Amino acid sequence: MPIVKALAMDSADAPFKRVEITRRDPLPDEVVIDIKFAGICHSDIHTARGEWGEVIYPLVPGHEIAGVVSAVGPEVTKFKVGDLAGIGCFVDACGVCEHCRMGEENACLDRTIWTYNDLGRDGLPTAGGYSQQIVARQDYVLRIPESIPLERAAPLLCAGVTPWSPLVRHKAGPGTKLAVVGLGGLGHMAVQLGHQLGCEVTVLSRTLRKREQGLALGADHYHATSDPDTFETLAENFDLIICTVSADLDVDALVGLLRLGGVLVFLGLPPDRQSFHIEPLCMGHKSITGSDIGGIPGTQDVLDFCAARGIAAQVQVIGADQVTEAYDKVVAGQVEFRYVIDVSTI
Amino acid sequence: MPIVKALAMDSADAPFKRVEITRRDPLPDEVVIDIKFAGICHSDIHTARGEWGEVIYPLVPGHEIAGVVSAVGPEVTKFKVGDLAGIGCFVDACGVCEHCRMGEENACLDRTIWTYNDLGRDGLPTAGGYSQQIVARQDYVLRIPESIPLERAAPLLCAGVTPWSPLVRHKAGPGTKLAVVGLGGLGHMAVQLGHQLGCEVTVLSRTLRKREQGLALGADHYHATSDPDTFETLAENFDLIICTVSADLDVDALVGLLRLGGVLVFLGLPPDRQSFHIEPLCMGHKSITGSDIGGIPGTQDVLDFCAARGIAAQVQVIGADQVTEAYDKVVAGQVEFRYVIDVSTI
Repeated sequence: MPIVKALAMDSADAPFKRVEITRRDPLPDEVVIDIKFAGICHSDIHTARGEWGEVIYPLVPGHEIAGVVSAVGPEVTKFKVGDLAGIGCFVDACGVCEHCRMGEENACLDRTIWTYNDLGRDGLPTAGGYSQQIVARQDYVLRIPESIPLERAAPLLCAGVTPWSPLVRHKAGPGTKLAVVGLGGLGHMAVQLGHQLGCEVTVLSRTLRKREQGLALGADHYHATSDPDTFETLAENFDLIICTVSADLDVDALVGLLRLGGVLVFLGLPPDRQSFHIEPLCMGHKSITGSDIGGIPGTQDVLDFCAARGIAAQVQVIGADQVTEAYDKVVAGQVEFRYVIDVSTI
Repeated sequence: MPIVKALAMDSADAPFKRVEITRRDPLPDEVVIDIKFAGICHSDIHTARGEWGEVIYPLVPGHEIAGVVSAVGPEVTKFKVGDLAGIGCFVDACGVCEHCRMGEENACLDRTIWTYNDLGRDGLPTAGGYSQQIVARQDYVLRIPESIPLERAAPLLCAGVTPWSPLVRHKAGPGTKLAVVGLGGLGHMAVQLGHQLGCEVTVLSRTLRKREQGLALGADHYHATSDPDTFETLAENFDLIICTVSADLDVDALVGLLRLGGVLVFLGLPPDRQSFHIEPLCMGHKSITGSDIGGIPGTQDVLDFCAARGIAAQVQVIGADQVTEAYDKVVAGQVEFRYVIDVSTI
């Protein structure tokens, strides 16, 4: 069984350190990927710091994984050595339950096996993309189109599919007035995807600081939520609002921006209970909903769509020694728009 | 201009008294309806008692109106004298805005003119169905099928279309697991309509007191929400929950009953802000939404559907002298399932 280099945290407040981990030899239907790049997702940070429940330390995070197939088991038909391949938030599921058959393996009724901070079928802790190799069944591996640079493809495995899922579910397209709240890792993908789908895209960000970048990504309009006029000017304006921020929110104010039948989708998870009035939902049958990554078919779709449209994540590539510091910068909102670790530096 | 008898309240805590009101002669496109029955909707009570904002007293409530056409203007093509006809929650709208063209005249972008407690185009207060006659433009009058007894048709104009709208919008039909929270005026219609649409229907009521009636109306299952086991037994069970109660609610508990992609629809309006966690919406892209009556096409559809399926509201017919007392009984939940005023007794 190969021993590979990885970055791990030993506790919620420890810095990353280099470790060696063991990866298994591939089972007959498994693919071995030599990881080239791994994105840093805000949920890596929440998990590693113990903000989302129990953690299995030492923890090797990373679920935005892009690399090259280096070996395949004898029953693998979908990949060959040398293919570009990716892994997202999960590495396995039952594959046969109602949800898996619907392509929502991320909600497997048996259990979804998460890429890190979970136990694999072998009972051993899973380890994520901040490492030089990963092994998974072929059905949970994504094809990365050759036209997307690997470092820009990695974040699509989470930050791409997460806004993609509600855009598709709610039929965003020409004629859709779309608002994206927050222009971070998820938001900058929501803007690009919404624009390429033909929506009229408005960014709602706390300030106008990233206005030029937002317009360059395809936004048609850009408003500051710190300006109270924004909520008056844009009242009853949107068919779909994708909210990517994780702070406490004025849910009623966001609902006030929806048109008849409009939908407010939360992708970010605010820490506490949110409160809202039901009456504004009734008057105009507006909806509040959420969304959480996507299944394998949706993840493949967003990779293929991005390749076809020539878009991808906007990234800053960093080395292994910068990851601990990068976590603080992500929390402080100082990344534009995604840090990606060059795994060769581990 | 005809002077007709009506029941009015002079203030929020006054009993009903008999009054005379003036109805206008029909304009060229207007229909005059001699009212036979008017349902008592809980929203009549909220409005009359000043719980929903300003009230124009003396107030003649009533927006579940069934009667017989007694005169028509010269341009009326849709009705003739002697036709059975009804009026619901509104008597006019612009008819040309985007929402009206979508058949959602109840959300007219100019303004919907409500059947009572509003001002008509003539600047005079509108007066509702607790009266012997009403006049409205033909486009806002509903055809009542001959097969539905008029007293059982009246509540369909509000309590029928209100659950009908979300059932249709969310494509309830064979295979849909539907829960109806509360078995009152709206709930007993939701159960019948859901059953006739082919849904598997579960009633969730505070107690099992009305279990036999619920099953007779078409419910397949009946559970008490006062039993904590209910929320465990039925976890992740429903595609659609229609909540008809107006009390404070445990929104998270209801969301916990939804399956992947399930929808929780509020028809009742709880008095205060409700609170909820966003995470359960994200894990399984569940939605919280609301709905409010329906437009003219939907109202006609529910009348025609009820006639085709041989269903209607379950009513207790009362005389004019019982209306004040009936209000208290509705608030106390003592009506099964709708009081309807015999307008000939005014």
